Amino acid sequence: MKQPHPKPAGEDRAAGNGLLDRRMFLRAGAAVASIMGYGLASEADAAGLPIEPWMQKPADPAKPYDTPSRFEAEVVRRGDVGNSGFKEVGTVRTPHHALTGTITPNGLHYTRYHTGVPDIDPERHRLLIHGLVKRPLLFTLDTLSRYPMESHIYFLECGGNSEMIYDEKPAQVGVQRLHGQVSCSEWTGIKLSVLLEEAGVDPGAKWIFGEGADASGMTRSVPLDKIMDNAMLALYQNGERLMPSNGYPMRLFLPGFEGNMNVKYLRRIKLLDSPTMSRDETSRYTMMRPGGVSTQFNKVMEAKSVITQPAPELTMKGPGLYQISGLAWSGYGKITRVEVSTDGGKSWAEADLQKPVRTLALTRFRIPWHWDGGPALLQSRATDNTGYVQWTRAAMIEKRGRWANYHGNCITTWAVAPGGKVTHVYA
Amino acid sequence: MKQPHPKPAGEDRAAGNGLLDRRMFLRAGAAVASIMGYGLASEADAAGLPIEPWMQKPADPAKPYDTPSRFEAEVVRRGDVGNSGFKEVGTVRTPHHALTGTITPNGLHYTRYHTGVPDIDPERHRLLIHGLVKRPLLFTLDTLSRYPMESHIYFLECGGNSEMIYDEKPAQVGVQRLHGQVSCSEWTGIKLSVLLEEAGVDPGAKWIFGEGADASGMTRSVPLDKIMDNAMLALYQNGERLMPSNGYPMRLFLPGFEGNMNVKYLRRIKLLDSPTMSRDETSRYTMMRPGGVSTQFNKVMEAKSVITQPAPELTMKGPGLYQISGLAWSGYGKITRVEVSTDGGKSWAEADLQKPVRTLALTRFRIPWHWDGGPALLQSRATDNTGYVQWTRAAMIEKRGRWANYHGNCITTWAVAPGGKVTHVYA
Repeated sequence: MKQPHPKPAGEDRAAGNGLLDRRMFLRAGAAVASIMGYGLASEADAAGLPIEPWMQKPADPAKPYDTPSRFEAEVVRRGDVGNSGFKEVGTVRTPHHALTGTITPNGLHYTRYHTGVPDIDPERHRLLIHGLVKRPLLFTLDTLSRYPMESHIYFLECGGNSEMIYDEKPAQVGVQRLHGQVSCSEWTGIKLSVLLEEAGVDPGAKWIFGEGADASGMTRSVPLDKIMDNAMLALYQNGERLMPSNGYPMRLFLPGFEGNMNVKYLRRIKLLDSPTMSRDETSRYTMMRPGGVSTQFNKVMEAKSVITQPAPELTMKGPGLYQISGLAWSGYGKITRVEVSTDGGKSWAEADLQKPVRTLALTRFRIPWHWDGGPALLQSRATDNTGYVQWTRAAMIEKRGRWANYHGNCITTWAVAPGGKVTHVYA
Repeated sequence: MKQPHPKPAGEDRAAGNGLLDRRMFLRAGAAVASIMGYGLASEADAAGLPIEPWMQKPADPAKPYDTPSRFEAEVVRRGDVGNSGFKEVGTVRTPHHALTGTITPNGLHYTRYHTGVPDIDPERHRLLIHGLVKRPLLFTLDTLSRYPMESHIYFLECGGNSEMIYDEKPAQVGVQRLHGQVSCSEWTGIKLSVLLEEAGVDPGAKWIFGEGADASGMTRSVPLDKIMDNAMLALYQNGERLMPSNGYPMRLFLPGFEGNMNVKYLRRIKLLDSPTMSRDETSRYTMMRPGGVSTQFNKVMEAKSVITQPAPELTMKGPGLYQISGLAWSGYGKITRVEVSTDGGKSWAEADLQKPVRTLALTRFRIPWHWDGGPALLQSRATDNTGYVQWTRAAMIEKRGRWANYHGNCITTWAVAPGGKVTHVYA
């Protein structure tokens, strides 16, 4: 189909290289649809529309649990399953290039697993709270169902998300491989402070450690302050019980903290006077600094954003108007601003944020762009309510070095080539 | 397991029959968990916890598209598939008794279908906008992808939801069968006003009619005012493409309006000077009034609420503390208040509303209740920001008669019997 290529009016320009004011898509001449070229009668009556096979006979009844159309079979979690040589160790990532909005559907929430996805019988699963408490408590799902529940929309991001951004040369991958270990759901559960107050916290308790019931025996230490502030025993994800790969039947949820600390399949919380220095917080999830010393307990995921459309997975189809769209988030609080550049950071325009902007949740940003068909360098830059501004890759590497591996939250650059191919570059 | 049954302190009482102030769950003595009776060592060390099979060996890798645990196999959409004698005609309803929060997972969104769920090839699907416009437009999914998108969390409710509440005697069914034709998602799409302004609306246009591409050829008329106000061409549901049973690849979305008008599989919007009086708005979806005259175009779904836990599907397990939880919504705007009664409407207490309360979306309410083990009559009553208060069944029947069939939005009563059985009653 032939696309008209209207030029944006001067007053709609918000930054260089075709970025338009976020409120002015239409005034720039949106016309990307046309009746032309479809062989319809000039009066454009419905008679010219094709009568497709699915309009001609009844189809199968609705399924008890609906799943996406077979035409969406490519929109799945992908990952390096078995990259360690063991199929039970892997990561599957959210296909953000194919999604929009802010809620991640449960089927597509990312997951990192260390010994596969356990098939836990909820009737037999137990949660023990013990250690420095006045009276240890043991919970079944049944007893937990009687406690007060709360729901919050929160993002969850693996500490190792975007690790390739530390590579010396830009990895030739897309948004799913590079940044797909972040997702966002409405989580429902019980405030951990409620359960701990019932157990009676000993004044000497300063940390907890959480242990999972998968075969890897995942354990992480968490400061008690965080637990008493806003930690949750999560039981539901977007209304239904947790997905098997997200901790069914229960997980620790620590809003804003790196994913690995949100122990899945939680079976035990022990209150302690210090962290346990467990395998999963010493051999992994530590950040190597330039001097060769590693920092431990890199808890909060810093402010970050990424453009999800256009992205390397999606070839652009001819010049004209597009909506640039992406996600921003911060483990410190709320996104207050996302700026977008199409000239590699020379000029910036403020994107529209999907309302309401939520605390500790993915925020969708959008801005119209008139692509002239020439080369472009797309970037986004998030600012949160603490004033933290997402840094450039150069600044991050200078400060952290190339071996930090975790928390890669710098600005990403997508290069658009004439012809519409999009690739990951450093700029 | 033996449950302690603490009595609520006097100052926590918010209404009769054990209803507690919504902020005071714990002060009433929440203790429903105990270490007793599990055979653990008295020091309650982890040694006493069973080592389950799933802790002892690695499991299968994560699936590309996750689905609920096999232990949740009963949490599915159920309905009267084929009640007309044709398997292609039916309804499947959301199992709200097993869900919480406000987002309905995509697999469990209700659906009403008239000729099954069509298997539409998105590459071949077209949307035509024609009739009283300056230039008719034909859209492919590809051209639509370049238009500005918006996301909103909205409820959707079938006009025929809760039709059994008009029955002479209370139907012996649960919350899924009685009220399961309402769900809530984050919908993303293009404002219809954007597409219509591009087509150029003729001053004589006052209505549109929308036509679906399923074999039933569903057609409904909608006032142009609504279309230009906040109607959306919905393309995504909770981030991913629409589910097949919810209109894949595109549907009309009219926030607050009865579900049937939100035409699925939308292939045509024609602008007209009057409604079409189509089959689907004359033979059905009209409301019979006491004098025998039917009203047509019963567009807005009025304020409504229902308690989802406890519910007839869930037998209560012994006296003590519970959290009563439910959903409230209004097609006119935002829920401002939900009151709960456990004595059949003699006394009421205000429930806590999950924040933020959203416009035209499901709102979760919760309130603690100390059940003394005796008979109770549970009710909820919603108020919206227009001042509309959900009416009693008696008031609704007096005004509408028993044959209105649609928009059954009166107060529902669940009777709790000693022993914990919950049933639907009129009170």
